Amino acid sequence: MASLFGGVEGGATHSRVVLVSEDGQILAETEGPSTNHWLIGAEQCVQRIELMVSEAKRKAGADPRVPLRSLGLSLSGGDQQDAIEKLMEELRRRFPHLSQSYLITTDAGGAMATATDHGGIVLIAGTGSNCKLINPDGSETGCGGWGHMMGDEGSAYWIAHQAVKTVFDCMDNLEEPPHDIAYVRQAMFDYFQVSDRMGLLTHLYRTFDKAKFAGFCQRLAEGAQAGDPLCCHVFTKAGEVLARHVVAVLPKIHQSLFVGELGLPIVCVGSVWNSWERMQEGFLRVLSRARAEGPGRLLSRFSLLKLKRSSALGAARIGARSAGAALPLDRADNVDVFYTHEF
Amino acid sequence: MASLFGGVEGGATHSRVVLVSEDGQILAETEGPSTNHWLIGAEQCVQRIELMVSEAKRKAGADPRVPLRSLGLSLSGGDQQDAIEKLMEELRRRFPHLSQSYLITTDAGGAMATATDHGGIVLIAGTGSNCKLINPDGSETGCGGWGHMMGDEGSAYWIAHQAVKTVFDCMDNLEEPPHDIAYVRQAMFDYFQVSDRMGLLTHLYRTFDKAKFAGFCQRLAEGAQAGDPLCCHVFTKAGEVLARHVVAVLPKIHQSLFVGELGLPIVCVGSVWNSWERMQEGFLRVLSRARAEGPGRLLSRFSLLKLKRSSALGAARIGARSAGAALPLDRADNVDVFYTHEF
Repeated sequence: MASLFGGVEGGATHSRVVLVSEDGQILAETEGPSTNHWLIGAEQCVQRIELMVSEAKRKAGADPRVPLRSLGLSLSGGDQQDAIEKLMEELRRRFPHLSQSYLITTDAGGAMATATDHGGIVLIAGTGSNCKLINPDGSETGCGGWGHMMGDEGSAYWIAHQAVKTVFDCMDNLEEPPHDIAYVRQAMFDYFQVSDRMGLLTHLYRTFDKAKFAGFCQRLAEGAQAGDPLCCHVFTKAGEVLARHVVAVLPKIHQSLFVGELGLPIVCVGSVWNSWERMQEGFLRVLSRARAEGPGRLLSRFSLLKLKRSSALGAARIGARSAGAALPLDRADNVDVFYTHEF
Repeated sequence: MASLFGGVEGGATHSRVVLVSEDGQILAETEGPSTNHWLIGAEQCVQRIELMVSEAKRKAGADPRVPLRSLGLSLSGGDQQDAIEKLMEELRRRFPHLSQSYLITTDAGGAMATATDHGGIVLIAGTGSNCKLINPDGSETGCGGWGHMMGDEGSAYWIAHQAVKTVFDCMDNLEEPPHDIAYVRQAMFDYFQVSDRMGLLTHLYRTFDKAKFAGFCQRLAEGAQAGDPLCCHVFTKAGEVLARHVVAVLPKIHQSLFVGELGLPIVCVGSVWNSWERMQEGFLRVLSRARAEGPGRLLSRFSLLKLKRSSALGAARIGARSAGAALPLDRADNVDVFYTHEF
């Protein structure tokens, strides 16, 4: 049997596995629940990975007892050395038939390798947020990614929190809201099925579920779509703060990343990007301002890219590379350039 | 045996019980662990209360099987109707010998009744924060008190968070810090016993302990004492935001509260007030500004009061009142006026 290369995209709610042949063809795909080891622990994490990979092997007509040539994993927190070593050790020890070699990268790493081999910025705005610059030489610089207690700016959680906090502060007379809160307040009571702010406390503490809280962002996106000024405002703010993540890594960007046909490539991951039109104004405002200063001067053009394939594909490519195999990349198949701006 | 009136101050880390005679003398005091029913559940909460009260009865030379005339409880969240009804029902059902009547008030209510019967503002800045105006007619208006996920501005948690966030954002190049972060960064690594920001994540998520996180505020107070500009800055900010809680309730303050000899009385509860000198500048700045607008014009003088007795005493007084007994108040014994300002 020809060599098979596996890739895993480990999410906080869903996961994906792809198996790829040496010529870059996707032979099988499987889905499964969360493989975020922070949330479920290493033991359950490796079990779920084994299940998905074995199923994918069967789908591809391969023998589940024959190891893959390599397995690349794109995981949130995939740069935490202690944790990933423990994960790899567990995988090797418990499932010797799974793969000959392993490589664990970050969620950003997998996304980038799905889009391009030349580097760029990965800007994640899903339930949480994160920004990672990957230079052509492979060096990385991050901004954010510390979770909802210490950041997550521009994420669905953050957007939901901004809106809810605006309602709380207005009702407390602590802070004048930028716009009328009526729509957001009612949407909040409806979404969380409560009748007052007190009722919301259980959603913030006793039964806190980050994904559930972040899900309120969807209602705000609908409100913005319908023209509610406060909803529009929080998305504009999200655009600003996401752009500030790009500005934060600007001084570290290799010059060559500015000069391609697309300008600076920004791979946008996560459902918040579905509201790009609502964020655009804030995003452009911050980048325009940054152009007046030092490293911002090199930024004359940028493009926003969306992945059409799972980051599991990029993870498979990185895993293969570490095992000495270069899987080809069909960029047109993998990414969509959904916005280009020239200053 | 003469009537005994009990009071409970239920804290997130410690609790206190006092037993008071009809003429207002404290006959016994006991201490115990947390009786925050949000943290430990109603069942354990009532058990701990029973233990402390029975011990206090013995200390006072009373028979633990003879019920108190009344028991007043000053609890965080003591205005959440469902929760307090459940607590009272549990107390009555399980411990019929404990007390003839019960009354549950908020932490602010107990503090206020320890200081005065005429009303004022209770401004809590301990692990969490909260502001409550109690008018002479008993009507209440609150601001804040929503916990660390939705506020707690000016609390020890908030101050610690502000400082840590400043370090994270500076190291990410996301935000220019107002002052050099070197002292705070090192203090943070030392306090949490970690060597980098990644190590701090477990303290924010997996092993999150609000009191432990808030405890970092103490190190920042030491830093401010030693003159570190960033530490001083976060305390000035805390002063500002605490004053903004006062400004939030200004429109609801009964005129009579402005005209006493002390001016507007503000009962300050919580260890953050130990750093009053560091917060003073920000606090005064915000109140001065508020005087230029509508209801702020009535504010020509205010005083900050510190309790010398536990809020359990105020809780006992409120409990007694609801049972038809008026316990006298010795204000000089109970409060200290530690600051008065005239604009």
